[in-house]
Amino acid sequence: MRPVDAKSIHILTGILGANDRQAEHNREHLGRHGILAINLMSSPGSGKTSLLEQTIDAVGGRFRIAVIEGDLETENDAERIRAKGVPAVQITTGQTCHLDAVMVHDALHTLNLDAIDVLLIENVGNLVCPASFDLGQHANVALLSVTEGDDKPAKYPTMFRAADLVVFSKIDLLDVLDDFSPAKAEGHVRALANPAEILRTSARRPETLAPWIAWLERRLVDRRAARR
Amino acid sequence: MRPVDAKSIHILTGILGANDRQAEHNREHLGRHGILAINLMSSPGSGKTSLLEQTIDAVGGRFRIAVIEGDLETENDAERIRAKGVPAVQITTGQTCHLDAVMVHDALHTLNLDAIDVLLIENVGNLVCPASFDLGQHANVALLSVTEGDDKPAKYPTMFRAADLVVFSKIDLLDVLDDFSPAKAEGHVRALANPAEILRTSARRPETLAPWIAWLERRLVDRRAARR
Repeated sequence: MRPVDAKSIHILTGILGANDRQAEHNREHLGRHGILAINLMSSPGSGKTSLLEQTIDAVGGRFRIAVIEGDLETENDAERIRAKGVPAVQITTGQTCHLDAVMVHDALHTLNLDAIDVLLIENVGNLVCPASFDLGQHANVALLSVTEGDDKPAKYPTMFRAADLVVFSKIDLLDVLDDFSPAKAEGHVRALANPAEILRTSARRPETLAPWIAWLERRLVDRRAARR
Repeated sequence: MRPVDAKSIHILTGILGANDRQAEHNREHLGRHGILAINLMSSPGSGKTSLLEQTIDAVGGRFRIAVIEGDLETENDAERIRAKGVPAVQITTGQTCHLDAVMVHDALHTLNLDAIDVLLIENVGNLVCPASFDLGQHANVALLSVTEGDDKPAKYPTMFRAADLVVFSKIDLLDVLDDFSPAKAEGHVRALANPAEILRTSARRPETLAPWIAWLERRLVDRRAARR
C-alpha cells in the first residue's frame, strides 16, 4: 500500500477509485433492501467474532442479522456464526490484508437480502489496511482490546479517525493490566478530532453489550428513516 | 497488496524484486559489520517494545544492542528504547502497513554499525503485511500474545510460516483466559510445517526471558562463526 513512485501512485489511485465506485454500488444495493451495513475492524484477536456471537444472542430475533467474515485463511469464523443460526459468508483473502468492495459485492450475491436488517462485516484482523478501503458500509466500528494498550489510537490514527464508534473490548481484564487507562485511550481518540461514542464491553459480562445493541438499533431506525 | 489485474501483478512483482535486492544489500552491509539482525513481528499491542526493553535489561551489556522501530506514527517506541541507553531509530511509515528494505537501509545509515552486535528491528504491528517484505534480517521472530487466542497461527499462516522463532507473550495472563491453549497454538504452527522453537514469556516475570536471551546469543555466535 506504499506509493513508491509516480507510476505506483497512479495505479494505487486507480485501484482506490475503482473500489470506491464498487463500494457506492454496494451501498445503493444495500439501501434498496433497507439494510444497515457495519464494517467491524480491529487487530487480530480483539474479540470481533465473540462480539458478533453475543450480539446475535442479545438481539434474539428483534432484527435479522447476517454476517460476512473476512480472514486470510480458514472458515472458522463463519462456522461459529452459522452455529448461532445466522447466515454467514466467509471470504478468504489469501495474502490480502483487508476486504475490498468487490469481495463484499460477491458475498452479497450469495445472501438473501430481503431477509436481512443488519449486515455485520467482520474485516481482516489488521489495524492498518482495512481503514483505507470503503466496502459500501454505513458505519465503521473499531474494536480495541484493553490488552493491546491505551496508546493504539495514537499509533494507528487512520483506523481510529475513520471509526464512527469505538468499542473497548475485554474490559473484564482491566483489573489485571497496567497499561490501559480508558481515559488515556479516549484522549488519544479525541486528539484525532474524532467525537465518536466510545463503549466498553466484555464477552464475559453480557450485560455490557446493551449500549452496543442500542447503538445498532438507533442506526437501523435512522437508516430506515433516511429511506423515506 | 492484492494483485487486482495483470498490470498490478507486474508492478507488485517489480516492487518486491527491488525490495529483495535492497534487502540483500542490507544483509551484506550488516554482515560486513558482524551484526545479527532480527525482524520482530506481531499484532499491535502484543508486547514487542516491552520485550525489547526487558531484553536490554537482561543482556546488561554482554552484547551491544541497537533498535529500529517501525510505526505508522509517533516516536514513542524509540523514546522508550533510548531511555534504556540504547541507540534507537524511529521509522514512521505513514499509511504503510510494514517496513521495507529501503526504510531499513536509510535507518542503518544513521547508526554506528561498528558499535552494534545485535540489531533488533520492531516491525509495524500487523500480522499480515510485514511477513512479505524482506528487510535484510537474519531471522524472523513472531510474537503472539496469549490474549489474541490460540487460533492465530492458522488464520495468519504467512506470518507463522515465515517465523524462525515463535514467542507466546503475556503468559502471566493464561490463568484468566479461556481461549488460549499453548498446545493448540503450537499445533497450528506445526500444521504449517514450521519446526521453529516456541518460547513463552511474560514481561512481568523477567526470569521467563532467559531462553529468549540464550536464543539470541546462540544466533549471534552462529552468525560470527559463519563469517569466518
